[in-house]
Amino acid sequence: MKLKVKDVDIATGGVQVVLLNEEDAHKLDLHHGDRVSVKKGKKLTTATLNIAESRKAVPAGKVGLYEEVLDALNAKHNDIVDIDIQEKPAGIYYIQKKLSGGKLNKQEMDELVKEIVNNKLTSIELTYFISACFTNGMSLSETVALTNSIVKYGSRLDIKKYPIIDKHSSGGVPGNRTTMLIVPIVAAAGLFMPKTSSRSITSPAGTADTMEVLAPVSLSLEKMRKVVMKTNACIVWGGAIDLAAADDKLIKLRHPLALDPEGMLLASILAKKAAVNSTHVLIDIPLGRDTKIKTKKHARHLKRLFIKIGKRLGMNIHVIMTRGEEPIGNGIGPALEARDVLWVLKRDPRKPVDLEKKAIIMSTKILQMAKVKDAKRKVIEILESGAAYKKMKEIIKEQGGNPNVDPDKIKIGPYSYTFKAPISGKITDIQNFTINKIARIAGAPVDKGAGVYFYNKHEFQKIKKGDKLMTIYAENKVRLKYALNILKKIDEIVIEKRKITR
Amino acid sequence: MKLKVKDVDIATGGVQVVLLNEEDAHKLDLHHGDRVSVKKGKKLTTATLNIAESRKAVPAGKVGLYEEVLDALNAKHNDIVDIDIQEKPAGIYYIQKKLSGGKLNKQEMDELVKEIVNNKLTSIELTYFISACFTNGMSLSETVALTNSIVKYGSRLDIKKYPIIDKHSSGGVPGNRTTMLIVPIVAAAGLFMPKTSSRSITSPAGTADTMEVLAPVSLSLEKMRKVVMKTNACIVWGGAIDLAAADDKLIKLRHPLALDPEGMLLASILAKKAAVNSTHVLIDIPLGRDTKIKTKKHARHLKRLFIKIGKRLGMNIHVIMTRGEEPIGNGIGPALEARDVLWVLKRDPRKPVDLEKKAIIMSTKILQMAKVKDAKRKVIEILESGAAYKKMKEIIKEQGGNPNVDPDKIKIGPYSYTFKAPISGKITDIQNFTINKIARIAGAPVDKGAGVYFYNKHEFQKIKKGDKLMTIYAENKVRLKYALNILKKIDEIVIEKRKITR
Repeated sequence: MKLKVKDVDIATGGVQVVLLNEEDAHKLDLHHGDRVSVKKGKKLTTATLNIAESRKAVPAGKVGLYEEVLDALNAKHNDIVDIDIQEKPAGIYYIQKKLSGGKLNKQEMDELVKEIVNNKLTSIELTYFISACFTNGMSLSETVALTNSIVKYGSRLDIKKYPIIDKHSSGGVPGNRTTMLIVPIVAAAGLFMPKTSSRSITSPAGTADTMEVLAPVSLSLEKMRKVVMKTNACIVWGGAIDLAAADDKLIKLRHPLALDPEGMLLASILAKKAAVNSTHVLIDIPLGRDTKIKTKKHARHLKRLFIKIGKRLGMNIHVIMTRGEEPIGNGIGPALEARDVLWVLKRDPRKPVDLEKKAIIMSTKILQMAKVKDAKRKVIEILESGAAYKKMKEIIKEQGGNPNVDPDKIKIGPYSYTFKAPISGKITDIQNFTINKIARIAGAPVDKGAGVYFYNKHEFQKIKKGDKLMTIYAENKVRLKYALNILKKIDEIVIEKRKITR
Repeated sequence: MKLKVKDVDIATGGVQVVLLNEEDAHKLDLHHGDRVSVKKGKKLTTATLNIAESRKAVPAGKVGLYEEVLDALNAKHNDIVDIDIQEKPAGIYYIQKKLSGGKLNKQEMDELVKEIVNNKLTSIELTYFISACFTNGMSLSETVALTNSIVKYGSRLDIKKYPIIDKHSSGGVPGNRTTMLIVPIVAAAGLFMPKTSSRSITSPAGTADTMEVLAPVSLSLEKMRKVVMKTNACIVWGGAIDLAAADDKLIKLRHPLALDPEGMLLASILAKKAAVNSTHVLIDIPLGRDTKIKTKKHARHLKRLFIKIGKRLGMNIHVIMTRGEEPIGNGIGPALEARDVLWVLKRDPRKPVDLEKKAIIMSTKILQMAKVKDAKRKVIEILESGAAYKKMKEIIKEQGGNPNVDPDKIKIGPYSYTFKAPISGKITDIQNFTINKIARIAGAPVDKGAGVYFYNKHEFQKIKKGDKLMTIYAENKVRLKYALNILKKIDEIVIEKRKITR
């Protein structure tokens, strides 16, 4: 049935929904929640049906499209689209098979992932798939098949170089912008590192958000290739080039129950590495109360799996475990973190020492993996000689940013509030969770200049009454007020005699 | 945050959704898909968040409520509601436990069901629960606990009588309105049968839809009790009295994958029986190509479980298997079925013999279960003497209908098209699936007078060229046209030499 598009200006955050008037739904014998195909020219997508109960929402003869559907079809208000009942895709049978305890072979996993990418499966159906993978587990072969299928139905950077370096940190630590130091160090050492990073979902900044303060990160695949061929490296947003389209959809549905079927977690990480032909991958698992992986035992188990699957995918993988109890770097939030990174690269005395130290350790390990001799000395030399800074400037320039940006000119939110120690004492506890929350409410990562800056952040560090503890920055007054309100509400933040908790 | 309600006139078919402007969502640090609480006075519900991308959909300061949320809060346009972040309910942990292979005890199941009823869990989370029950299975104790919890958090008809009779047919057979004959027969025999039935979801009519042609079926619990105390029985719509509120929500999410975790299927059926204090329950499992249960083996397995669980619930359960390959009764659609039922009760020569026969068999079995002597003779006598018809008139009258309705005055759709046999031959195949589809497109069950009427419907019956095969009825021209179009498209309907397939 051909209908005129009404842009209803609603976004679900991933699920594709169309809205039909009751009368039109009846004509097609369609009910709430049915699967419908929506076609505009040669573009086709699958959506879930909601029903408009009045002309006001959507009149007969029109179809309301949610943002996700408009995007998938590249459609706009008043376009004509064709709505029809969607036959059940094969993926449903594979999901049922997996639910019933069966194993999916390469071909089945491939078809399923193809249908996920082509929006043939609804979020309820994908939830059943995730659940089946969690409950029934995934074999090593299934994990490898899923990884390969995600890569197959995503974009790919196919450069013929060796070695190609990548890294990954599992989440939960505020700041922790090691990537922005490791990439220029490794590239300055002559290795290739075409790095794709994520934007933040639940933290105050992802590496892509922070890099964006210095240079554009939404590069096309072609542009990314040019930057890498010229400078050996890049730091771009993976989302812009869709390296793992299927994975992006699954992640959204794993979120509500924080359900990470192990095979999916591994495939999710490794598909993005495989998509850029990585040969050597360093994986950092921070351990702490608020980090994603919480125990050494769990980290060791993942380590073994990473290495096994890496072998099947032709990747040399090394896994390290690091301390994740407190933020790494002083600034939290895109602009504050970018300033920290430049201070390290420019050897400014204000550089955060913990961030520099972690970047050195990881860069050294990477150089060792690539059989570079005397790795640690080389890394330090690259940093101290300014070679890393020079490399970063090249990357910034090629990505389209200003290579000569002065870290002190980076725009930090003009509204701020500074906390000082009300008594002398010792910092006994830093809550990553709370810090993330405050920085987000203050506006990060959307407001690049918003966030938190720490003066004395290490646990067990002594402070005197009147010492600055931290400053909250925001780009507008209202958000600063919200952040301060939240701070008042959070009872984990206790300042009392001999105990300063921040 | 207090916001003014905008009625956005959208229904999802069950999932509760609210729509916030981007600006307001940010203030609360809320993201797509987050769980929010919505409060109006003392009423509280939980909804999933969608984000409006413009003032047009929802401006800042307002919140768009979907129909399901408006209903839950009894809210209307321009009311003020309070939106807040919803803490994770305990049910999430029980779902995670079940996903991880744990068993839920009575208390946990109870808490989970309570949260389902109170709309504390999102559809994605409930999908995980269904999936876990399917994959990990449910123990007998879990099934009994689920049944009891559904009853506990639903309405209940607590009459003190013995025996209290109930019946259930698993679905897939068009027509098959045995309940409307069994209830008056059993009640005329002096037994209690407070019957609640469902409306159609995917078939052309449910028993509640058909009974509604003769009398109101959306009775309050109090009114239902009065009808039963006066007449021994009733035939009402279960949805109006919410006997199994939690189950209603689960059923909607089982639909997309047609996933019926066995324990849930059993709990779903038996909770509604337990909620009216049933002591004797007859379960009919029709077997056929298009029926819900397809093999004898599966039916036998369910039979054993029904009986076991019945014992734990204090119910005497008997299970029969019947032929489900073709429609039962001549009319398909509410008015046509209601006319069939009255023809049987009034001993009209046009009565459908197969429907009568099945009702006699089932009524006999029920009387035998209740230790009534000489059951079959008694059932036939009740029918032939007009006692069953008299009882039905009492029930119709007490429910608020017209007891003296003339079956030939029941309004059948004025637009019709009759198919005649183009050749002589034998009917070789009747497709329940196809018949359901045609009747629905013609307007059933919403248009009560729409549907299909069969003149010669039995398989292997001989017909001559020119014999009437069936008439499609509709309440308006357009729907008749749609139904005929569908008929043309369906290639299973083949009329060829020596093979008349309908």
